[in-house]
Amino acid sequence: MAVYTDVTDEALRLFLAEYDLGELLAFRGIAEGVENSNFALKTSNGDFILTLYEKRVDPAELPWFLGLMRHLGANGLSCPLPVAGRDGVALRELAGRPAAICTFLPGIWPRRVRQAHCAPLGAALAMLHSAGEGFRAERPNALGPRAWGPLLERCREGGDDLQPGLIAELDRHLAGIQHDWPRDLPRGHIHADLFPDNVFFLENEQGSPVVSGLIDFYFACTDFLAYDLAICLNAWCFEPDLAFNVTKARAMINAYNALRPLTPEELEALPVLCRGSAIRFLLTRLYDWTHTPAGALVTRKDPLEYLKRLRFHASARDVSAYGL
Amino acid sequence: MAVYTDVTDEALRLFLAEYDLGELLAFRGIAEGVENSNFALKTSNGDFILTLYEKRVDPAELPWFLGLMRHLGANGLSCPLPVAGRDGVALRELAGRPAAICTFLPGIWPRRVRQAHCAPLGAALAMLHSAGEGFRAERPNALGPRAWGPLLERCREGGDDLQPGLIAELDRHLAGIQHDWPRDLPRGHIHADLFPDNVFFLENEQGSPVVSGLIDFYFACTDFLAYDLAICLNAWCFEPDLAFNVTKARAMINAYNALRPLTPEELEALPVLCRGSAIRFLLTRLYDWTHTPAGALVTRKDPLEYLKRLRFHASARDVSAYGL
Repeated sequence: MAVYTDVTDEALRLFLAEYDLGELLAFRGIAEGVENSNFALKTSNGDFILTLYEKRVDPAELPWFLGLMRHLGANGLSCPLPVAGRDGVALRELAGRPAAICTFLPGIWPRRVRQAHCAPLGAALAMLHSAGEGFRAERPNALGPRAWGPLLERCREGGDDLQPGLIAELDRHLAGIQHDWPRDLPRGHIHADLFPDNVFFLENEQGSPVVSGLIDFYFACTDFLAYDLAICLNAWCFEPDLAFNVTKARAMINAYNALRPLTPEELEALPVLCRGSAIRFLLTRLYDWTHTPAGALVTRKDPLEYLKRLRFHASARDVSAYGL
Repeated sequence: MAVYTDVTDEALRLFLAEYDLGELLAFRGIAEGVENSNFALKTSNGDFILTLYEKRVDPAELPWFLGLMRHLGANGLSCPLPVAGRDGVALRELAGRPAAICTFLPGIWPRRVRQAHCAPLGAALAMLHSAGEGFRAERPNALGPRAWGPLLERCREGGDDLQPGLIAELDRHLAGIQHDWPRDLPRGHIHADLFPDNVFFLENEQGSPVVSGLIDFYFACTDFLAYDLAICLNAWCFEPDLAFNVTKARAMINAYNALRPLTPEELEALPVLCRGSAIRFLLTRLYDWTHTPAGALVTRKDPLEYLKRLRFHASARDVSAYGL
């Protein structure tokens, strides 16, 4: 939950005067998202989300993110669409921060992932990858394989306080992942953070969940498409006790595959992509863990949840471990 | 900002099945309010707020609060209206907490109070007091004068760490307030916490702020009506540097007085009611300050802001200090 920066009503009125959004009707901080400040904005034209970009987002990269969202929307994906001011500019400034208004997406993110969510999620991921085609500019994955070694170095001091022997185990895993990492696979624009709280669902008439939209593209980058699927397998297919649910995984992969068939090389690489994805989230959590003063005003997520995932993937001989 | 308890989508669906609210379209945690968990709920019937009552609210008192809101709404005040389920019951349970859905109010609360807000606020307060007439059940003010002595006792240890001599000064102020406290004044149901974040405004066609609604009645109680005005004078009429803005006060009191004329006794008592209101917020903040472990996950509000207010009111000879 997050509203790091508040906005005075006067500043808001001046800001909205640059838009053709009609009359301001309501403005409430939203307790979701962890990186930026988000506000629900209601005007006589409808519902919108106002985002103030906080310091973990590089302002120089915002045009790429907003451009990608616009491209994805134009290609049929349901995602927040940046709303431009009267001058055609969507990325502005408010309360000393870069700021943008995007369209509001209906839907509810699943607090508990059910099997019925996984096929629609897999299909939405394939649609995202297709919709990204033709967006020319690339953004390297700042949290990709080359970042993991330096991240682990910066956790070396303090990492074993969390669990004795952790750093040595991660050294072994990381060496293996880097040795096995595929040299080349189909590439494109990936979300790279498609956790359940970034996917909204509604129910169809039969009561089955359908994806109503994807949000929070501020980790999006250009990388192996199948790596995005590996992130989703980690984020959606482990039960609260961290047992891997192969039925969910099979549903997700099959739905993805039906819209964007995975190549044999992608299928073969899936276990190592999953190991890489697990160590990526493990390392950023471990970094936060070792660098956040005790008692600070943030919730630290448990890195060890990802150690259990990592060990599962390390035990996978091939894609059959994922139900295929 | 506050979402203390999250609600799973399944639990939400089961809960909403008890209502005639149409199709669920969106559900987002709201980063406002400090005592309860609040969610913006959008259905095909409109916008609503779902509140889960957290432990600082006594469940036994919830029927009184919801009943008062219903009564105020029925008498023309714009406030959240509890929405009943199909069985006619508004107060239900969700995620192990008492829970209620209320109507959504348009408007924006003023982050910076301008003079133009103060007359509409005074008028809205008078309307609230009139609208409360006829609601028979009373709720004693749990944070009224009789609570202040015990509260101060519980701050005695640690209070002077905040500022040397603080406790002795508060002892003197409290003795004076209790000596001067009026025995009898017009009574009724008061909001008792009408700070700017509990008052929504919209602009009329001339660009002037008009009150669109009052929220958060969970400190409401039955007490001297003019004490509510004293709370608003403290909450709305001090500048960020804690200088008293007599122009704002005059605008607020005059607008109140035009709708519900203050008696000579109320006017005479205004300074001591303001002293009492200042010590009430000072003491609850001081209690939180002295009883919250350093580094806890809450923001402690500065009690000393209210010491400065208290000293101002103690220097007021009569109601002329408030611009009358």
